[in-house]
Amino acid sequence: MPADPSDRGDDPRDDPGDQATTVAELRQLVEDFVAERDWSRYHSPKNLAMSIAIEAAELMEHFQWLEPAEAQRAMDDPVKRAAAAEELADVVGYCFAMAGAMGVDLSQAVRAKMLRNHEKYPAAVFRGKPSYERPADENLG
Amino acid sequence: MPADPSDRGDDPRDDPGDQATTVAELRQLVEDFVAERDWSRYHSPKNLAMSIAIEAAELMEHFQWLEPAEAQRAMDDPVKRAAAAEELADVVGYCFAMAGAMGVDLSQAVRAKMLRNHEKYPAAVFRGKPSYERPADENLG
Amino acid sequence: MPADPSDRGDDPRDDPGDQATTVAELRQLVEDFVAERDWSRYHSPKNLAMSIAIEAAELMEHFQWLEPAEAQRAMDDPVKRAAAAEELADVVGYCFAMAGAMGVDLSQAVRAKMLRNHEKYPAAVFRGKPSYERPADENLG
Amino acid sequence: MPADPSDRGDDPRDDPGDQATTVAELRQLVEDFVAERDWSRYHSPKNLAMSIAIEAAELMEHFQWLEPAEAQRAMDDPVKRAAAAEELADVVGYCFAMAGAMGVDLSQAVRAKMLRNHEKYPAAVFRGKPSYERPADENLG
Repeated sequence: MPADPSDRGDDPRDDPGDQATTVAELRQLVEDFVAERDWSRYHSPKNLAMSIAIEAAELMEHFQWLEPAEAQRAMDDPVKRAAAAEELADVVGYCFAMAGAMGVDLSQAVRAKMLRNHEKYPAAVFRGKPSYERPADENLG
Repeated sequence: MPADPSDRGDDPRDDPGDQATTVAELRQLVEDFVAERDWSRYHSPKNLAMSIAIEAAELMEHFQWLEPAEAQRAMDDPVKRAAAAEELADVVGYCFAMAGAMGVDLSQAVRAKMLRNHEKYPAAVFRGKPSYERPADENLG
Repeated sequence: MPADPSDRGDDPRDDPGDQATTVAELRQLVEDFVAERDWSRYHSPKNLAMSIAIEAAELMEHFQWLEPAEAQRAMDDPVKRAAAAEELADVVGYCFAMAGAMGVDLSQAVRAKMLRNHEKYPAAVFRGKPSYERPADENLG
Repeated sequence: MPADPSDRGDDPRDDPGDQATTVAELRQLVEDFVAERDWSRYHSPKNLAMSIAIEAAELMEHFQWLEPAEAQRAMDDPVKRAAAAEELADVVGYCFAMAGAMGVDLSQAVRAKMLRNHEKYPAAVFRGKPSYERPADENLG
């Protein structure tokens, strides 16, 4: 038992953060938590897909009735930002569990998808235009 | 233009994968993609929360009509797994964009939430029991 | 002010039920509730679409960790059924508000969509097959 | 095969609409459609809850990147309104199927929930205030 909570990584000041944390390290945190409770029996891909969607809806609740500009300003309030960040962490945590249940390397999946997005939405065509406004004269060839 | 696609990172064999990829590296991929298209104007927290939920629903579609065991077996089929992995990558990609729009370090948020989960669901109490079955005689003190 | 709550329709035994209730009557209940609180200012189509999705996720929560057969059996438990029915009512209530905000007759929209579904999924082709298994030799002509 | 499409109710001019359509009539349309295809085997409460959420997300897609005022104006465009109405009809259709799978009278469920909402959000307290801003000095007694 550590004498000081910061030894266990409880202190966010000690947290290495996104710059020094690999995806595998975060995945391991989730995997250990699930294994310690023998919860993998509940973590089928079907149930985890539902769980991701449920947590995504809880994240939406923080912005449901706010105008977009209000919602943006709410993120300058540390209390509201922390509450929304907790929901975002839930979504991401279940995404890690899902990657495990699917047998997928998440970094490879994200890199592969971003390459497809670069092909589907060339910067020269879509700069400043929303993704649903595909120009009629677009030539992707 | 590189002579070899692997120079651009297209080749998954060259992908360092979750073990050697930091969260910041993946976040940067998404941030650059958005910046090159000047899409940050659309990426308000409210719109991104909707986008995460929309992509989560597209992930669910892959398992909608399957029995849980069928859904698990479907992940042994490389084509079906790759299709579902693409949707999972979309969810995660929007989560990275959301972390940016919220000004949140995702690794810190995930670590902090996992610590709260450890307190809320002690392994000694919940081992083998689903999270919604909190025992009446549970003593968390 | 009625002397007896059943005069106000509080008593489900007096409720005319689906056989004798028009869609317009239920829509009116929701419209009056919103008008009395001056909440139409929050009920933009964008916010209501989010609200429908949020309530749909709360409905999913009742089935998240259950095997499909367990979930079906849970609906034989009056307490669990009532709790899930409350979430379903929330989804439908927001759908009524959405029809109002969109200026849409819901019965016409449902009838029109069911006709399209009949064309898209002919009974002779899809009987006993899931909707995603469109036979290769299907001839819809 | 009818000589005139209006005989089959295809012509929206002949549709009785929300004023003259009972909830039971719409539920029957969905029930017959499912029975003709022997799809009740797929229509477990768990799967239908997922389906409602999936269709809700498709409805959100129509408003995902629009400012709230733009989204409202889009509903003045008959083509965009019809496209969104089709998704709304999908959500409602699955809600009818869900009521069937759960054994619930939807009109009773909606009336009961609206009564609870009247108690939870008294008009005198919440007029003009969003539902999440419960006043500290509120006296519901």
